[in-house]
Amino acid sequence: MGLIVQKFGGTSVADAEKIHKAARRAVAARQKGNQVVVVVSAMGDTTDDLIAMAKSVCGDCPPPKREMDQLLVTGEQVTIALMAMAMHAQGQQAISFTGGQIGLVTDNSFSKARIQSINKQRLFDQLNQGKIVIVAGFQGVTPDGEVTTLGRGGSNATLVAVGAVLGADVCENYTDVDGIYTADPRIVPNARKIDRISYDEMLELAGLGASVLQTRAVEFAKKYNVPIHVRNSQNDNEGTWIVAETPNMEHIVVSGAALKKDLTRITLKHVPDQPGVAARIFGQIAAANIVVDDIIQNVMDDQTANVSFTVEHGDLEDIRQVVKGIIHDLPPTEATYQGNLAKVSVVGVGMRIHTGVAGKMFKALSEAKINIQNITTSEIKISCIIDREQGAKALQVVHEAFDLGTKK
Amino acid sequence: MGLIVQKFGGTSVADAEKIHKAARRAVAARQKGNQVVVVVSAMGDTTDDLIAMAKSVCGDCPPPKREMDQLLVTGEQVTIALMAMAMHAQGQQAISFTGGQIGLVTDNSFSKARIQSINKQRLFDQLNQGKIVIVAGFQGVTPDGEVTTLGRGGSNATLVAVGAVLGADVCENYTDVDGIYTADPRIVPNARKIDRISYDEMLELAGLGASVLQTRAVEFAKKYNVPIHVRNSQNDNEGTWIVAETPNMEHIVVSGAALKKDLTRITLKHVPDQPGVAARIFGQIAAANIVVDDIIQNVMDDQTANVSFTVEHGDLEDIRQVVKGIIHDLPPTEATYQGNLAKVSVVGVGMRIHTGVAGKMFKALSEAKINIQNITTSEIKISCIIDREQGAKALQVVHEAFDLGTKK
Repeated sequence: MGLIVQKFGGTSVADAEKIHKAARRAVAARQKGNQVVVVVSAMGDTTDDLIAMAKSVCGDCPPPKREMDQLLVTGEQVTIALMAMAMHAQGQQAISFTGGQIGLVTDNSFSKARIQSINKQRLFDQLNQGKIVIVAGFQGVTPDGEVTTLGRGGSNATLVAVGAVLGADVCENYTDVDGIYTADPRIVPNARKIDRISYDEMLELAGLGASVLQTRAVEFAKKYNVPIHVRNSQNDNEGTWIVAETPNMEHIVVSGAALKKDLTRITLKHVPDQPGVAARIFGQIAAANIVVDDIIQNVMDDQTANVSFTVEHGDLEDIRQVVKGIIHDLPPTEATYQGNLAKVSVVGVGMRIHTGVAGKMFKALSEAKINIQNITTSEIKISCIIDREQGAKALQVVHEAFDLGTKK
Repeated sequence: MGLIVQKFGGTSVADAEKIHKAARRAVAARQKGNQVVVVVSAMGDTTDDLIAMAKSVCGDCPPPKREMDQLLVTGEQVTIALMAMAMHAQGQQAISFTGGQIGLVTDNSFSKARIQSINKQRLFDQLNQGKIVIVAGFQGVTPDGEVTTLGRGGSNATLVAVGAVLGADVCENYTDVDGIYTADPRIVPNARKIDRISYDEMLELAGLGASVLQTRAVEFAKKYNVPIHVRNSQNDNEGTWIVAETPNMEHIVVSGAALKKDLTRITLKHVPDQPGVAARIFGQIAAANIVVDDIIQNVMDDQTANVSFTVEHGDLEDIRQVVKGIIHDLPPTEATYQGNLAKVSVVGVGMRIHTGVAGKMFKALSEAKINIQNITTSEIKISCIIDREQGAKALQVVHEAFDLGTKK
């Protein structure tokens, strides 16, 4: 008996029948004596449908982000109400809350807001009455009452944030897959489900495009030490537990491999080589809420620097605006863009104590005639930027090189 | 130049094209120098679709009203966001607000909440920046932050309430008809559009089932003396102005006729004939937020009374629950139900100074062999309860008897 927060993604609540199935899972957990909070996403393709409606109204004119958020939050709000109705129909007391109604306060970065606080008292008041509490994922409200969304994977951020403030025993993330895999099974057929993985490894994998969980959710879980259990909503199998690192995790050199499929590299040339310039550039990019990785800087002969970095293709329009400002402010800076890039990576806490991991990876890529354009590393990760069209092959050969398909 | 509040109903915002058309109308009013607030309903059949979704989840189990409201408000929230996007695409600054965001506070009668207050400062702050303000109709929020809906015609209640707090010069109600008619044109082919009608006449007609405007909205308009202009969103014709009564309105004996199609009469027999019993009965019914009309009470020989009243068929389940309680509390009271009734009425401020109106109406019904079961009157209205299946014919003969198809 404890406190469980369950999250059901869009495919797990896509129709009335699936909503009832998810509801039964929550009710079963409640009947075992647990206190249960359920976080839900928008049903099936609802978010895409809403985006299409906005597009049909706006044409090529980008919709104001505030209004886009006002629109998108309706998706989750429909699900919470229907989920509460399903539980009532099953004889279970339940109550639904929007992000705003549980005081899930965010900053005012529309479309990718950050959670600042949650009113846990409102949740406990209802839990202590025996109710299941249903919370709309992906959304919050600014201190001024403006509606915000939390960006990609925002429902997972809600899951873990709610779990953290309530001190939950586990955050169960129900999806349409059995857990976290050693690589994307759609690309690597013999990819294997991972039983347990550390927050740090998951953080690296999430940052690298493993789509089940996003960086932010895992950061939260790590900070508050909330275990996440990624499970399949269609069966009762154990999924993948994401937990604090234990010493024996280091015996596994590489836990997983990941592919980011669609990157663009921006190169700023002739940047004045003065103290503070890099801080200024990346400060402006951060202020625009754009995530950047793989920064490379070289000083050239003419006392100017070249600065390269990659962004996801989806951020391209936003970064163009920021770069335009930077060029204006820092003559004689110029910018070039190279699209159609991908990034293949391997991750494992075991890299800290094992050597030769990088060499093994480069050799595998080289033997497959895949050209490496950039290399970046962290303590537990090695990444290579390559051509986008070689991405899938790269992931396969790396997965094979480290024998990730075989349980260690 | 002034302050205009425009309301667009569901058919006027049913798709992207219609939203743009409505937006253009608001933008045109803004460009003439007016301050403009736009109240919108859910798009087309959205509300029905949401109700169907609830039904598919709940089956025969009635959904909790709180959750139903949580669900239904999403309909208008989608429209406000898309409307704001359409205006932005047309180059007009605009901002959307949910009921909660403009502090439209209601009581906590889910599914038929009453407006208590609106934060007009939030509206003026935006209007004074030159923006068009778009407000979700039909919804509000309790002081505790619970989402409520305002019941049938709730968007019109929002229109007039917003118009009243802002001191608007006119509330324009855009619909798919040209205005208020002397009778429902679907039943009476030669029904005629009324140019001007008094609040009191409109109140009677609205209470009698004329569907364009509801009682509550007209009451508000009368109280705050806000003119309502009911217009067709598909053309620029003058519609019907609903305004304070002027002396020359009394020259017209009957302004309009109306039909309520689906009523049930409840008769409570053997009610103890004690002081306060009627107050107790109708107090309980009012507490359940059920609208009752045509109350008839007779004292019988055995010192008990018979009390009859009618309710709309849609309130039947709710009234059954209340009546069950009354029977339990007041033995030896028994209840009988008679369904399949209708009510035909004529309305006109001219009745105050003209005589013979009732006789003319009864004669017309009698000549058409329509049996009158009950008669109720007010200073400006005469109503007859009849069989439901004779309703359409009754409306036609009454309309003809008073020659309402001919402009006076």
